[in-house]
Amino acid sequence: MIVCKIGGAEGIDIDSVCDDIAALVQSGTRLVLVHGGSSKTNRVAEALGVPQRFVTSPSGFTSRHTDRATLEVFEMVYCGSQNKGIVERLQQRGVDAVGLSGMDGRIWSGSRKKAIRSVEGGKTKILRDGYTGVVENVNTDLLHMLLERGSLPVLTPPAISHEGEAINVDGDRAAAATAAALSAEQLLLLSNVPGFLGDFPDESSLVPRLHAHDFEVAIEHAQGRMKIKLLGAKEALDGGVERVIIGSATTAGCVRAALEGRGTIIE
Amino acid sequence: MIVCKIGGAEGIDIDSVCDDIAALVQSGTRLVLVHGGSSKTNRVAEALGVPQRFVTSPSGFTSRHTDRATLEVFEMVYCGSQNKGIVERLQQRGVDAVGLSGMDGRIWSGSRKKAIRSVEGGKTKILRDGYTGVVENVNTDLLHMLLERGSLPVLTPPAISHEGEAINVDGDRAAAATAAALSAEQLLLLSNVPGFLGDFPDESSLVPRLHAHDFEVAIEHAQGRMKIKLLGAKEALDGGVERVIIGSATTAGCVRAALEGRGTIIE
Repeated sequence: MIVCKIGGAEGIDIDSVCDDIAALVQSGTRLVLVHGGSSKTNRVAEALGVPQRFVTSPSGFTSRHTDRATLEVFEMVYCGSQNKGIVERLQQRGVDAVGLSGMDGRIWSGSRKKAIRSVEGGKTKILRDGYTGVVENVNTDLLHMLLERGSLPVLTPPAISHEGEAINVDGDRAAAATAAALSAEQLLLLSNVPGFLGDFPDESSLVPRLHAHDFEVAIEHAQGRMKIKLLGAKEALDGGVERVIIGSATTAGCVRAALEGRGTIIE
Repeated sequence: MIVCKIGGAEGIDIDSVCDDIAALVQSGTRLVLVHGGSSKTNRVAEALGVPQRFVTSPSGFTSRHTDRATLEVFEMVYCGSQNKGIVERLQQRGVDAVGLSGMDGRIWSGSRKKAIRSVEGGKTKILRDGYTGVVENVNTDLLHMLLERGSLPVLTPPAISHEGEAINVDGDRAAAATAAALSAEQLLLLSNVPGFLGDFPDESSLVPRLHAHDFEVAIEHAQGRMKIKLLGAKEALDGGVERVIIGSATTAGCVRAALEGRGTIIE
Protein backbone atom coordinates (compact mmCIF):
# COMPACT_ATOMS: atom_id res chain seq x y z
CA MET A 1 0.00 0.00 0.00
CA ILE A 2 1.23 3.47 -0.97
CA VAL A 3 -0.18 6.81 0.09
CA CYS A 4 0.81 9.55 -2.36
CA LYS A 5 0.29 13.24 -1.54
CA ILE A 6 0.49 15.80 -4.35
CA GLY A 7 0.85 19.43 -3.35
CA GLY A 8 -1.24 22.27 -4.68
CA ALA A 9 1.51 24.76 -5.47
CA GLU A 10 2.37 26.17 -8.90
CA GLY A 11 4.38 23.89 -11.16
CA ILE A 12 2.79 20.56 -10.28
CA ASP A 13 2.26 18.42 -13.41
CA ILE A 14 -1.08 16.82 -12.60
CA ASP A 15 -1.34 15.00 -15.94
CA SER A 16 2.00 13.27 -15.45
CA VAL A 17 1.09 12.40 -11.86
CA CYS A 18 -2.16 10.85 -13.11
CA ASP A 19 -0.28 8.90 -15.82
CA ASP A 20 1.96 7.33 -13.19
CA ILE A 21 -0.82 6.75 -10.68
CA ALA A 22 -2.94 5.01 -13.35
CA ALA A 23 -0.02 2.75 -14.33
CA LEU A 24 0.58 1.83 -10.69
CA VAL A 25 -3.09 1.09 -9.96
CA GLN A 26 -3.42 -0.92 -13.19
CA SER A 27 -0.39 -3.03 -12.26
CA GLY A 28 -2.11 -3.95 -9.00
CA THR A 29 -0.61 -1.48 -6.51
CA ARG A 30 -2.98 -0.44 -3.75
CA LEU A 31 -2.88 3.29 -3.55
CA VAL A 32 -4.56 6.26 -1.92
CA LEU A 33 -4.04 9.70 -3.44
CA VAL A 34 -4.18 12.87 -1.33
CA HIS A 35 -3.98 16.34 -2.86
CA GLY A 36 -3.83 20.02 -2.03
CA GLY A 37 -4.90 23.16 -3.85
CA SER A 38 -3.27 26.10 -2.13
CA SER A 39 -2.16 28.28 -5.02
CA LYS A 40 -5.50 28.11 -6.83
CA THR A 41 -7.25 28.89 -3.54
CA ASN A 42 -5.19 32.08 -3.33
CA ARG A 43 -6.16 33.04 -6.88
CA VAL A 44 -9.88 32.31 -6.48
CA ALA A 45 -10.03 34.01 -3.07
CA GLU A 46 -8.48 37.11 -4.55
CA ALA A 47 -10.89 37.10 -7.52
CA LEU A 48 -13.83 36.70 -5.13
CA GLY A 49 -12.55 39.46 -2.83
CA VAL A 50 -11.87 37.21 0.18
CA PRO A 51 -8.63 38.47 1.78
CA GLN A 52 -6.12 35.72 2.60
CA ARG A 53 -3.95 35.76 5.70
CA PHE A 54 -1.16 33.40 6.62
CA VAL A 55 -0.15 32.81 10.20
CA THR A 56 3.18 31.72 11.65
CA SER A 57 3.07 29.79 14.90
CA PRO A 58 5.58 30.54 17.69
CA SER A 59 7.45 27.34 16.68
CA GLY A 60 7.78 28.65 13.11
CA PHE A 61 5.11 26.70 11.20
CA THR A 62 3.26 28.74 8.58
CA SER A 63 -0.34 28.00 7.58
CA ARG A 64 -3.41 29.59 6.03
CA HIS A 65 -5.69 31.38 8.45
CA THR A 66 -9.01 29.75 7.65
CA ASP A 67 -11.94 31.88 8.72
CA ARG A 68 -15.39 30.85 7.53
CA ALA A 69 -15.26 32.89 4.29
CA THR A 70 -11.88 31.36 3.43
CA LEU A 71 -13.16 27.89 4.29
CA GLU A 72 -15.88 28.25 1.67
CA VAL A 73 -13.40 29.24 -1.03
CA PHE A 74 -11.11 26.47 0.17
CA GLU A 75 -13.89 23.89 -0.29
CA MET A 76 -14.71 25.21 -3.75
CA VAL A 77 -11.13 24.82 -4.90
CA TYR A 78 -9.98 21.71 -3.03
CA CYS A 79 -13.20 19.64 -3.15
CA GLY A 80 -14.64 21.09 -6.37
CA SER A 81 -12.03 22.20 -8.84
CA GLN A 82 -8.94 20.20 -7.82
CA ASN A 83 -10.56 16.99 -6.61
CA LYS A 84 -12.91 16.61 -9.55
CA GLY A 85 -10.19 17.64 -12.01
CA ILE A 86 -8.04 14.76 -10.74
CA VAL A 87 -10.95 12.30 -10.69
CA GLU A 88 -11.78 13.22 -14.30
CA ARG A 89 -8.17 12.70 -15.42
CA LEU A 90 -7.96 9.32 -13.68
CA GLN A 91 -11.30 8.17 -15.09
CA GLN A 92 -10.00 9.10 -18.56
CA ARG A 93 -7.06 6.79 -17.85
CA GLY A 94 -9.36 3.92 -16.89
CA VAL A 95 -9.00 4.24 -13.11
CA ASP A 96 -12.13 4.08 -10.99
CA ALA A 97 -11.31 7.16 -8.95
CA VAL A 98 -13.61 8.23 -6.11
CA GLY A 99 -13.00 11.74 -4.83
CA LEU A 100 -13.84 12.51 -1.23
CA SER A 101 -13.08 15.18 1.32
CA GLY A 102 -12.05 14.29 4.84
CA MET A 103 -15.59 15.21 5.94
CA ASP A 104 -17.26 12.55 3.79
CA GLY A 105 -17.90 9.49 5.89
CA ARG A 106 -15.75 11.23 8.56
CA ILE A 107 -12.64 9.91 6.80
CA TRP A 108 -10.51 12.45 8.66
CA SER A 109 -11.72 13.69 12.02
CA GLY A 110 -10.06 15.70 14.74
CA SER A 111 -10.37 18.60 17.15
CA ARG A 112 -10.90 22.14 15.97
CA LYS A 113 -8.32 24.51 17.47
CA LYS A 114 -10.34 27.04 19.42
CA ALA A 115 -7.47 29.53 19.47
CA ILE A 116 -4.38 29.92 17.32
CA ARG A 117 -1.24 31.81 18.27
CA SER A 118 0.17 33.88 15.43
CA VAL A 119 3.47 35.73 15.52
CA GLU A 120 3.09 39.01 13.63
CA GLY A 121 5.75 41.71 13.70
CA GLY A 122 7.37 40.20 16.78
CA LYS A 123 4.09 40.07 18.73
CA THR A 124 1.98 36.99 19.43
CA LYS A 125 -1.71 37.40 18.67
CA ILE A 126 -4.52 35.00 19.52
CA LEU A 127 -6.98 34.24 16.70
CA ARG A 128 -10.30 32.60 17.55
CA ASP A 129 -12.20 32.70 14.25
CA GLY A 130 -10.22 29.94 12.54
CA TYR A 131 -11.48 26.59 11.32
CA THR A 132 -8.34 24.49 11.53
CA GLY A 133 -7.28 21.35 13.30
CA VAL A 134 -5.27 18.16 13.07
CA VAL A 135 -6.43 14.72 11.92
CA GLU A 136 -6.71 12.50 15.00
CA ASN A 137 -8.71 9.65 13.54
CA VAL A 138 -8.84 8.07 10.06
CA ASN A 139 -11.93 6.09 9.06
CA THR A 140 -10.08 3.25 7.37
CA ASP A 141 -13.28 1.22 7.06
CA LEU A 142 -14.62 3.34 4.19
CA LEU A 143 -11.18 3.48 2.53
CA HIS A 144 -10.74 -0.31 2.71
CA MET A 145 -14.21 -0.78 1.25
CA LEU A 146 -13.34 1.40 -1.73
CA LEU A 147 -9.95 -0.29 -2.20
CA GLU A 148 -11.60 -3.73 -2.02
CA ARG A 149 -13.80 -2.88 -4.99
CA GLY A 150 -10.82 -1.68 -7.00
CA SER A 151 -11.48 2.04 -6.57
CA LEU A 152 -8.81 4.65 -5.98
CA PRO A 153 -9.72 7.04 -3.14
CA VAL A 154 -8.72 10.62 -3.98
CA LEU A 155 -8.75 12.54 -0.70
CA THR A 156 -8.56 16.22 0.12
CA PRO A 157 -9.03 18.52 3.12
CA PRO A 158 -11.12 19.73 4.89
CA ALA A 159 -11.48 17.21 7.69
CA ILE A 160 -14.33 17.29 10.18
CA SER A 161 -14.27 18.29 13.85
CA HIS A 162 -15.84 16.26 16.63
CA GLU A 163 -18.67 18.82 16.56
CA GLY A 164 -19.18 18.29 12.82
CA GLU A 165 -17.52 21.48 11.57
CA ALA A 166 -15.33 21.52 8.48
CA ILE A 167 -11.73 22.10 9.55
CA ASN A 168 -8.74 22.89 7.39
CA VAL A 169 -6.00 20.37 8.11
CA ASP A 170 -2.54 20.17 6.63
CA GLY A 171 -2.58 17.82 3.64
CA ASP A 172 0.91 16.40 4.25
CA ARG A 173 0.12 15.52 7.86
CA ALA A 174 -3.32 14.16 6.86
CA ALA A 175 -1.61 11.96 4.27
CA ALA A 176 0.84 10.81 6.97
CA ALA A 177 -2.03 9.94 9.34
CA THR A 178 -3.74 8.05 6.50
CA ALA A 179 -0.57 6.10 5.64
CA ALA A 180 -0.10 5.14 9.29
CA ALA A 181 -3.75 4.15 9.75
CA LEU A 182 -3.71 2.01 6.59
CA SER A 183 -0.33 0.44 7.55
CA ALA A 184 1.07 1.67 4.21
CA GLU A 185 4.64 0.72 3.44
CA GLN A 186 5.39 4.00 1.72
CA LEU A 187 4.31 7.60 1.88
CA LEU A 188 5.21 9.94 -0.99
CA LEU A 189 5.07 13.69 -0.32
CA LEU A 190 5.44 15.27 -3.76
CA SER A 191 5.42 18.98 -4.52
CA ASN A 192 7.31 21.56 -6.55
CA VAL A 193 10.69 21.06 -4.82
CA PRO A 194 13.10 18.17 -5.45
CA GLY A 195 13.25 17.15 -1.77
CA PHE A 196 14.74 18.44 1.48
CA LEU A 197 17.47 20.93 0.69
CA GLY A 198 20.30 21.31 3.21
CA ASP A 199 20.87 24.84 1.93
CA PHE A 200 17.53 26.16 0.65
CA PRO A 201 16.94 27.18 -2.18
CA ASP A 202 20.13 25.64 -3.62
CA GLU A 203 18.87 22.47 -5.34
CA SER A 204 22.36 20.97 -5.44
CA SER A 205 22.12 20.77 -1.64
CA LEU A 206 19.41 18.07 -1.88
CA VAL A 207 19.73 15.66 1.03
CA PRO A 208 19.18 12.20 -0.49
CA ARG A 209 18.70 10.38 2.80
CA LEU A 210 17.59 11.51 6.21
CA HIS A 211 17.55 9.37 9.33
CA ALA A 212 15.00 9.56 12.06
CA HIS A 213 17.59 10.82 14.55
CA ASP A 214 18.41 13.81 12.30
CA PHE A 215 14.83 15.00 12.36
CA GLU A 216 14.94 17.57 15.13
CA VAL A 217 17.79 19.44 13.46
CA ALA A 218 16.23 19.14 9.99
CA ILE A 219 12.83 20.43 11.12
CA GLU A 220 14.52 23.33 12.90
CA HIS A 221 16.55 24.06 9.77
CA ALA A 222 13.77 23.69 7.15
CA GLN A 223 12.03 26.62 5.50
CA GLY A 224 8.31 27.25 5.03
CA ARG A 225 6.26 24.27 3.85
CA MET A 226 9.21 21.85 4.19
CA LYS A 227 8.98 22.14 7.97
CA ILE A 228 5.47 20.65 7.89
CA LYS A 229 6.47 17.96 5.37
CA LEU A 230 9.22 16.80 7.71
CA LEU A 231 6.80 16.82 10.62
CA GLY A 232 4.41 14.72 8.52
CA ALA A 233 7.25 12.35 7.61
CA LYS A 234 8.12 11.95 11.29
CA GLU A 235 4.49 11.25 12.21
CA ALA A 236 4.23 8.64 9.44
CA LEU A 237 7.39 6.83 10.58
CA ASP A 238 6.26 7.00 14.22
CA GLY A 239 2.99 5.46 13.02
CA GLY A 240 4.75 2.49 11.43
CA VAL A 241 5.20 3.57 7.79
CA GLU A 242 8.48 2.08 6.53
CA ARG A 243 9.60 4.75 4.11
CA VAL A 244 8.74 8.35 3.34
CA ILE A 245 9.96 10.02 0.15
CA ILE A 246 9.85 13.79 -0.21
CA GLY A 247 10.17 14.53 -3.90
CA SER A 248 9.04 16.44 -6.95
CA ALA A 249 5.78 16.23 -8.91
CA THR A 250 6.73 18.61 -11.69
CA THR A 251 7.84 16.34 -14.54
CA ALA A 252 6.82 13.26 -16.51
CA GLY A 253 7.51 10.06 -14.60
CA CYS A 254 7.75 11.89 -11.27
CA VAL A 255 5.82 9.41 -9.14
CA ARG A 256 7.79 6.48 -10.55
CA ALA A 257 11.05 8.37 -9.98
CA ALA A 258 10.12 9.09 -6.37
CA LEU A 259 9.36 5.40 -5.80
CA GLU A 260 12.79 4.63 -7.24
CA GLY A 261 14.28 6.94 -4.64
CA ARG A 262 14.61 10.31 -6.33
CA GLY A 263 14.18 12.97 -3.67
CA THR A 264 14.82 12.69 0.04
CA ILE A 265 14.30 9.22 1.45
CA ILE A 266 13.46 8.99 5.11
CA GLU A 267 13.53 5.61 6.83
CA MET B 1 -36.09 3.77 -0.63
CA ILE B 2 -36.55 7.47 -1.34
CA VAL B 3 -34.54 9.65 -3.70
CA CYS B 4 -34.83 13.33 -2.79
CA LYS B 5 -33.60 16.08 -5.11
CA ILE B 6 -33.17 19.59 -3.74
CA GLY B 7 -32.83 22.40 -6.25
CA GLY B 8 -30.14 25.04 -6.22
CA ALA B 9 -32.30 28.12 -6.76
CA GLU B 10 -32.68 31.04 -4.35
CA GLY B 11 -35.01 30.46 -1.41
CA ILE B 12 -34.17 26.84 -0.64
CA ASP B 13 -33.93 26.26 3.13
CA ILE B 14 -31.03 23.81 3.28
CA ASP B 15 -30.98 23.66 7.08
CA SER B 16 -34.63 22.62 7.24
CA VAL B 17 -34.09 20.08 4.47
CA CYS B 18 -31.17 18.60 6.43
CA ASP B 19 -33.27 18.50 9.63
CA ASP B 20 -35.91 16.42 7.85
CA ILE B 21 -33.41 14.22 5.99
CA ALA B 22 -31.57 13.46 9.25
CA ALA B 23 -34.83 12.51 11.00
CA LEU B 24 -35.78 10.22 8.11
CA VAL B 25 -32.38 8.50 7.97
CA GLN B 26 -32.31 8.10 11.75
CA SER B 27 -35.74 6.48 11.70
CA GLY B 28 -34.39 3.88 9.27
CA THR B 29 -35.49 5.25 5.90
CA ARG B 30 -33.10 4.44 3.07
CA LEU B 31 -32.43 7.63 1.24
CA VAL B 32 -30.25 9.16 -1.46
CA LEU B 33 -30.00 12.94 -1.62
CA VAL B 34 -29.34 14.75 -4.92
CA HIS B 35 -28.76 18.50 -5.08
CA GLY B 36 -28.19 21.38 -7.47
CA GLY B 37 -26.43 24.71 -7.19
CA SER B 38 -27.51 26.83 -10.11
CA SER B 39 -28.03 30.25 -8.54
CA LYS B 40 -24.71 30.21 -6.67
CA THR B 41 -22.99 29.08 -9.89
CA ASN B 42 -24.37 32.21 -11.59
CA ARG B 43 -23.05 34.44 -8.78
CA VAL B 44 -19.58 32.84 -8.64
CA ALA B 45 -19.25 32.79 -12.44
CA GLU B 46 -20.06 36.49 -12.56
CA ALA B 47 -17.56 37.29 -9.79
CA LEU B 48 -14.89 35.29 -11.62
CA GLY B 49 -15.69 36.94 -14.95
CA VAL B 50 -16.95 33.78 -16.69
CA PRO B 51 -19.94 34.82 -18.82
CA GLN B 52 -23.01 32.58 -18.47
CA ARG B 53 -25.27 31.68 -21.37
CA PHE B 54 -28.54 29.78 -21.28
CA VAL B 55 -29.81 27.88 -24.29
CA THR B 56 -33.34 26.96 -25.27
CA SER B 57 -33.80 23.81 -27.32
CA PRO B 58 -36.24 23.74 -30.27
CA SER B 59 -38.64 21.77 -28.03
CA GLY B 60 -38.53 24.57 -25.44
CA PHE B 61 -36.25 23.17 -22.74
CA THR B 62 -33.89 25.74 -21.20
CA SER B 63 -30.47 24.79 -19.82
CA ARG B 64 -27.07 26.24 -18.96
CA HIS B 65 -24.58 26.27 -21.82
CA THR B 66 -21.62 24.54 -20.20
CA ASP B 67 -18.38 25.35 -21.97
CA ARG B 68 -15.15 24.27 -20.28
CA ALA B 69 -14.71 27.50 -18.29
CA THR B 70 -18.28 27.23 -17.01
CA LEU B 71 -17.78 23.56 -16.18
CA GLU B 72 -14.92 24.47 -13.87
CA VAL B 73 -17.01 27.04 -12.00
CA PHE B 74 -19.87 24.54 -11.96
CA GLU B 75 -17.65 21.94 -10.27
CA MET B 76 -16.41 24.46 -7.72
CA VAL B 77 -19.93 25.36 -6.68
CA TYR B 78 -21.79 22.05 -7.04
CA CYS B 79 -19.05 19.64 -5.85
CA GLY B 80 -17.20 22.03 -3.55
CA SER B 81 -19.39 24.63 -1.95
CA GLN B 82 -22.87 23.05 -2.12
CA ASN B 83 -22.01 19.38 -1.71
CA LYS B 84 -19.65 19.88 1.21
CA GLY B 85 -21.98 22.42 2.81
CA ILE B 86 -24.72 19.79 2.85
CA VAL B 87 -22.37 17.03 4.03
CA GLU B 88 -21.21 19.25 6.91
CA ARG B 89 -24.79 20.04 7.97
CA LEU B 90 -25.76 16.36 7.89
CA GLN B 91 -22.66 15.28 9.82
CA GLN B 92 -23.58 17.90 12.45
CA ARG B 93 -26.96 16.17 12.70
CA GLY B 94 -25.35 12.77 13.22
CA VAL B 95 -25.82 11.44 9.68
CA ASP B 96 -22.87 9.72 7.99
CA ALA B 97 -23.15 11.69 4.76
CA VAL B 98 -20.82 10.89 1.86
CA GLY B 99 -20.76 13.53 -0.86
CA LEU B 100 -19.97 12.43 -4.40
CA SER B 101 -20.28 13.79 -7.90
CA GLY B 102 -21.65 11.66 -10.69
CA MET B 103 -18.05 11.25 -11.91
CA ASP B 104 -16.85 9.54 -8.74
CA GLY B 105 -16.94 5.81 -9.24
CA ARG B 106 -18.84 6.59 -12.49
CA ILE B 107 -22.05 6.85 -10.48
CA TRP B 108 -23.71 8.68 -13.38
CA SER B 109 -22.44 8.03 -16.88
CA GLY B 110 -23.78 8.92 -20.29
CA SER B 111 -23.01 10.32 -23.72
CA ARG B 112 -21.73 13.83 -24.21
CA LYS B 113 -23.83 15.77 -26.71
CA LYS B 114 -21.46 16.69 -29.49
CA ALA B 115 -23.75 19.42 -30.80
CA ILE B 116 -26.59 21.33 -29.19
CA ARG B 117 -29.32 23.20 -31.03
CA SER B 118 -30.13 26.53 -29.47
CA VAL B 119 -33.00 28.78 -30.52
CA GLU B 120 -31.87 32.41 -30.27
CA GLY B 121 -33.93 35.29 -31.68
CA GLY B 122 -35.98 32.94 -33.82
CA LYS B 123 -32.90 31.29 -35.36
CA THR B 124 -31.49 27.88 -34.53
CA LYS B 125 -27.75 27.81 -33.83
CA ILE B 126 -25.52 24.79 -33.40
CA LEU B 127 -23.14 24.87 -30.41
CA ARG B 128 -20.25 22.40 -30.29
CA ASP B 129 -18.23 23.54 -27.27
CA GLY B 130 -20.65 22.30 -24.62
CA TYR B 131 -20.03 19.64 -21.98
CA THR B 132 -23.53 18.36 -21.40
CA GLY B 133 -25.30 15.05 -21.64
CA VAL B 134 -27.91 12.78 -20.11
CA VAL B 135 -27.41 10.05 -17.50
CA GLU B 136 -27.73 6.70 -19.27
CA ASN B 137 -26.29 4.44 -16.60
CA VAL B 138 -26.30 4.57 -12.79
CA ASN B 139 -23.63 2.66 -10.86
CA THR B 140 -25.94 1.30 -8.18
CA ASP B 141 -23.21 -0.99 -6.84
CA LEU B 142 -21.33 1.86 -5.14
CA LEU B 143 -24.57 3.42 -3.89
CA HIS B 144 -25.79 0.13 -2.41
CA MET B 145 -22.43 -0.36 -0.72
CA LEU B 146 -22.69 3.05 0.94
CA LEU B 147 -26.31 2.48 1.94
CA GLU B 148 -25.43 -0.95 3.39
CA ARG B 149 -22.96 0.63 5.79
CA GLY B 150 -25.54 3.19 6.90
CA SER B 151 -24.14 6.11 4.91
CA LEU B 152 -26.24 8.68 3.09
CA PRO B 153 -25.02 9.34 -0.46
CA VAL B 154 -25.23 13.04 -1.34
CA LEU B 155 -24.97 13.27 -5.12
CA THR B 156 -24.44 16.14 -7.50
CA PRO B 157 -23.65 16.74 -11.18
CA PRO B 158 -21.46 16.59 -13.21
CA ALA B 159 -21.75 13.07 -14.57
CA ILE B 160 -19.07 11.44 -16.70
CA SER B 161 -19.10 10.73 -20.42
CA HIS B 162 -18.10 7.40 -21.95
CA GLU B 163 -14.81 9.10 -22.88
CA GLY B 164 -14.24 10.18 -19.28
CA GLU B 165 -15.16 13.85 -19.65
CA ALA B 166 -17.15 15.71 -17.01
CA ILE B 167 -20.60 16.48 -18.41
CA ASN B 168 -23.27 18.72 -16.95
CA VAL B 169 -26.48 16.76 -16.61
CA ASP B 170 -29.83 17.94 -15.38
CA GLY B 171 -30.14 17.21 -11.66
CA ASP B 172 -33.86 16.41 -11.72
CA ARG B 173 -33.44 13.88 -14.52
CA ALA B 174 -30.31 12.43 -12.87
CA ALA B 175 -32.31 12.00 -9.66
CA ALA B 176 -35.06 10.31 -11.70
CA ALA B 177 -32.55 7.91 -13.29
CA THR B 178 -31.12 7.18 -9.82
CA ALA B 179 -34.57 6.50 -8.34
CA ALA B 180 -35.40 4.15 -11.22
CA ALA B 181 -32.06 2.32 -11.01
CA LEU B 182 -32.38 1.85 -7.23
CA SER B 183 -36.04 0.77 -7.56
CA ALA B 184 -36.99 3.58 -5.19
CA GLU B 185 -40.65 3.81 -4.26
CA GLN B 186 -40.64 7.59 -4.19
CA LEU B 187 -38.86 10.46 -5.87
CA LEU B 188 -39.12 13.95 -4.39
CA LEU B 189 -38.26 16.90 -6.64
CA LEU B 190 -38.15 19.88 -4.29
CA SER B 191 -37.35 23.45 -5.25
CA ASN B 192 -38.59 26.99 -4.64
CA VAL B 193 -42.06 26.46 -6.13
CA PRO B 194 -44.98 24.70 -4.41
CA GLY B 195 -45.50 22.23 -7.26
CA PHE B 196 -46.86 22.19 -10.81
CA LEU B 197 -49.00 25.28 -11.32
CA GLY B 198 -51.79 25.04 -13.89
CA ASP B 199 -51.61 28.81 -14.33
CA PHE B 200 -48.00 29.84 -13.62
CA PRO B 201 -47.10 31.88 -11.51
CA ASP B 202 -50.46 31.83 -9.67
CA GLU B 203 -49.77 29.57 -6.68
CA SER B 204 -53.48 28.99 -6.10
CA SER B 205 -53.46 27.09 -9.41
CA LEU B 206 -51.34 24.28 -7.85
CA VAL B 207 -52.29 20.97 -9.43
CA PRO B 208 -52.38 18.50 -6.49
CA ARG B 209 -52.42 15.37 -8.61
CA LEU B 210 -51.28 14.62 -12.13
CA HIS B 211 -51.83 11.36 -13.97
CA ALA B 212 -49.42 9.81 -16.38
CA HIS B 213 -51.82 10.33 -19.29
CA ASP B 214 -51.89 14.10 -18.63
CA PHE B 215 -48.15 14.38 -19.04
CA GLU B 216 -47.92 15.45 -22.65
CA VAL B 217 -50.23 18.40 -22.11
CA ALA B 218 -48.59 19.34 -18.81
CA ILE B 219 -45.04 19.29 -20.24
CA GLU B 220 -46.22 21.37 -23.18
CA HIS B 221 -47.90 23.80 -20.80
CA ALA B 222 -45.11 24.06 -18.18
CA GLN B 223 -42.75 27.02 -17.90
CA GLY B 224 -38.95 27.00 -17.61
CA ARG B 225 -37.50 24.52 -15.11
CA MET B 226 -40.88 22.87 -14.49
CA LYS B 227 -40.77 21.40 -18.02
CA ILE B 228 -37.65 19.41 -17.09
CA LYS B 229 -39.03 18.40 -13.69
CA LEU B 230 -42.09 16.92 -15.40
CA LEU B 231 -39.86 15.14 -17.92
CA GLY B 232 -37.83 13.74 -14.98
CA ALA B 233 -41.05 12.65 -13.26
CA LYS B 234 -42.17 10.86 -16.42
CA GLU B 235 -38.80 9.11 -16.76
CA ALA B 236 -38.93 8.00 -13.11
CA LEU B 237 -42.45 6.55 -13.47
CA ASP B 238 -41.50 4.87 -16.74
CA GLY B 239 -38.54 3.38 -14.84
CA GLY B 240 -40.78 1.84 -12.19
CA VAL B 241 -40.84 4.50 -9.42
CA GLU B 242 -44.28 4.42 -7.80
CA ARG B 243 -44.74 8.04 -6.87
CA VAL B 244 -43.12 11.37 -7.73
CA ILE B 245 -43.83 14.47 -5.68
CA ILE B 246 -42.94 17.89 -7.01
CA GLY B 247 -42.91 20.25 -4.05
CA SER B 248 -41.27 23.03 -2.11
CA ALA B 249 -38.03 23.07 -0.10
CA THR B 250 -38.36 26.58 1.30
CA THR B 251 -39.77 26.07 4.80
CA ALA B 252 -39.30 24.04 7.97
CA GLY B 253 -40.70 20.53 7.65
CA CYS B 254 -40.73 20.72 3.83
CA VAL B 255 -39.45 17.21 3.12
CA ARG B 256 -41.89 15.68 5.58
CA ALA B 257 -44.72 17.75 4.08
CA ALA B 258 -43.85 16.58 0.56
CA LEU B 259 -43.88 12.95 1.74
CA GLU B 260 -47.33 13.62 3.20
CA GLY B 261 -48.45 14.77 -0.22
CA ARG B 262 -47.99 18.54 -0.22
CA GLY B 263 -47.16 19.60 -3.76
CA THR B 264 -48.02 17.84 -6.98
CA ILE B 265 -48.31 14.06 -6.67
CA ILE B 266 -47.71 12.08 -9.82
CA GLU B 267 -48.53 8.37 -9.89
